Amino acid sequence: MTLTREGCCALGYSCCPECSVGSVGQPRGKEEQMLKHGYPAYTTSCAWLCSSDQLLKQLCTEALKEGWTKFKVKVGADLKDNIHRFRFIQKMIGPDKIMMNITFCYCRNAFDFYFPYPQMLDVTELAEFKPLWTEEPTSPDDILGHATIAKALALLGIGVATGEHCQKRVIFKQLLQAKALTYLQIDSCRLGSVNENLSVLLMAKNFCLPWCWGNWPCELVQHLKVFDYISVSGTPLFVFFSRMCEFVDHLHKHFKYPTVIKNASYMPPQDAGYPTEMKENSARNYQFPEGEVWQEHLSSQKAQQH
Amino acid sequence: MTLTREGCCALGYSCCPECSVGSVGQPRGKEEQMLKHGYPAYTTSCAWLCSSDQLLKQLCTEALKEGWTKFKVKVGADLKDNIHRFRFIQKMIGPDKIMMNITFCYCRNAFDFYFPYPQMLDVTELAEFKPLWTEEPTSPDDILGHATIAKALALLGIGVATGEHCQKRVIFKQLLQAKALTYLQIDSCRLGSVNENLSVLLMAKNFCLPWCWGNWPCELVQHLKVFDYISVSGTPLFVFFSRMCEFVDHLHKHFKYPTVIKNASYMPPQDAGYPTEMKENSARNYQFPEGEVWQEHLSSQKAQQH
Repeated sequence: MTLTREGCCALGYSCCPECSVGSVGQPRGKEEQMLKHGYPAYTTSCAWLCSSDQLLKQLCTEALKEGWTKFKVKVGADLKDNIHRFRFIQKMIGPDKIMMNITFCYCRNAFDFYFPYPQMLDVTELAEFKPLWTEEPTSPDDILGHATIAKALALLGIGVATGEHCQKRVIFKQLLQAKALTYLQIDSCRLGSVNENLSVLLMAKNFCLPWCWGNWPCELVQHLKVFDYISVSGTPLFVFFSRMCEFVDHLHKHFKYPTVIKNASYMPPQDAGYPTEMKENSARNYQFPEGEVWQEHLSSQKAQQH
Repeated sequence: MTLTREGCCALGYSCCPECSVGSVGQPRGKEEQMLKHGYPAYTTSCAWLCSSDQLLKQLCTEALKEGWTKFKVKVGADLKDNIHRFRFIQKMIGPDKIMMNITFCYCRNAFDFYFPYPQMLDVTELAEFKPLWTEEPTSPDDILGHATIAKALALLGIGVATGEHCQKRVIFKQLLQAKALTYLQIDSCRLGSVNENLSVLLMAKNFCLPWCWGNWPCELVQHLKVFDYISVSGTPLFVFFSRMCEFVDHLHKHFKYPTVIKNASYMPPQDAGYPTEMKENSARNYQFPEGEVWQEHLSSQKAQQH
């Protein structure tokens, strides 16, 4: 399909006077590339807060053996601990791997306060590790806060990734308009299904912004991300640097069409559809409160109380 | 109390480097002024869409007799009908009354699309009636869209009022930062109770922005608005022009502490508290589905089906 300005307006974009979405839908061998190499992924399973050095070492070693090259590192409130974790992991994965992510624990207290300025100070302290981005450095709805942070961190070569908590395309439109992010990190479940995902995807193409699917569970964007690459925004040159999809290694066993990872990339799904379907057994066992898993959990809780 | 920059930070403002909230809490006779004249109100009960000329005439005549000077006029999709309604009402209320409001029917179709640009064209067509503001001209979350509209309409002397659908102070902070509104129209029920209302109120003082409480039901901001005027942002000079509270003449009978209107102003409440309490009878009768009102409604529906 070819999107004209009218087509763009029909999607409800407010940026239409400046917009030129251009042509979409010319695969140019991108389908073959996807089938051969898959869609690049980064792992978020290795570097959580509170993991011991021994566990970090074990998880990183396993991930390196599996071919992972991009690692997400969580950041907490303790700067000294953060520096230690970053140094430890960078030593493990080596200088040729990309240490890609600082995710802040941005909700600092029960009143849900956000402080972009102190967080920027935290990031500058970690700049020596050359993280690709900092993730959600302030309230997910604070477009202008993100823009301020993005401008300041650009001087240090650190990007801003956000979007996982954005509930509608209106917020994404503004994040793009305000140059408030360097990596657009959509959560496909939070938006209004396929239609709303597509509107964000087309806006991102319009603003030439790298994608980053921050999806949980990973199964749900198998088709969307491949469609985006083949038919909307992908170019063979940039695929390995400008777009990637988060991978967390859990829950796959519950899905009828689980993701397939090969050499740290998602292989394209071979079935049509939107693979949200769970296995019958899983759905039955996890039903609250009568499912087997809940019944076991509740019985053990009861036993502990007595 | 006196709010310092640290105090401002403690409220979670992201705008603190530029902030200077200054002193609050010096009544300077403002309490007496409130007790004597009350808090200015505007009526939104007279000029709804689809009302016949006869009904408009009747409602405006009654409102004028009651002393109302500020009228909210609804605007729909039909420009010709809008112009007719505005002309009719302006003739009714006369040139010395303030016709204060254009409220757009901004949700244009089932997909919840927003189009700021066409709406601006609609407003310019109505500029001859000198409306004080246009209300929510685009998606309530679209800060940058509101800012674009506010900038364009300022040239016509028309303000932008918004905020009734804003769900948290982070959105208000940005609307203020981006100069996206001329009148801040809070809905006290949508925010997180007193604390979050106070944070928006203090930010509005910081940005010197006129208040406009868009509240429904009217009972719920009786204390907040008077506190704001006496202890935070009110100055005797500007009270009658820079702040007002919406009035809709319904539901009052269900509240234990109903609003008291005198000469088109809310009189300050005489009881302490946050007057959300409803009368026992009302709460019982409107309980779904066992309440008397619902039972009658459901029975009549059933009778119609047979």
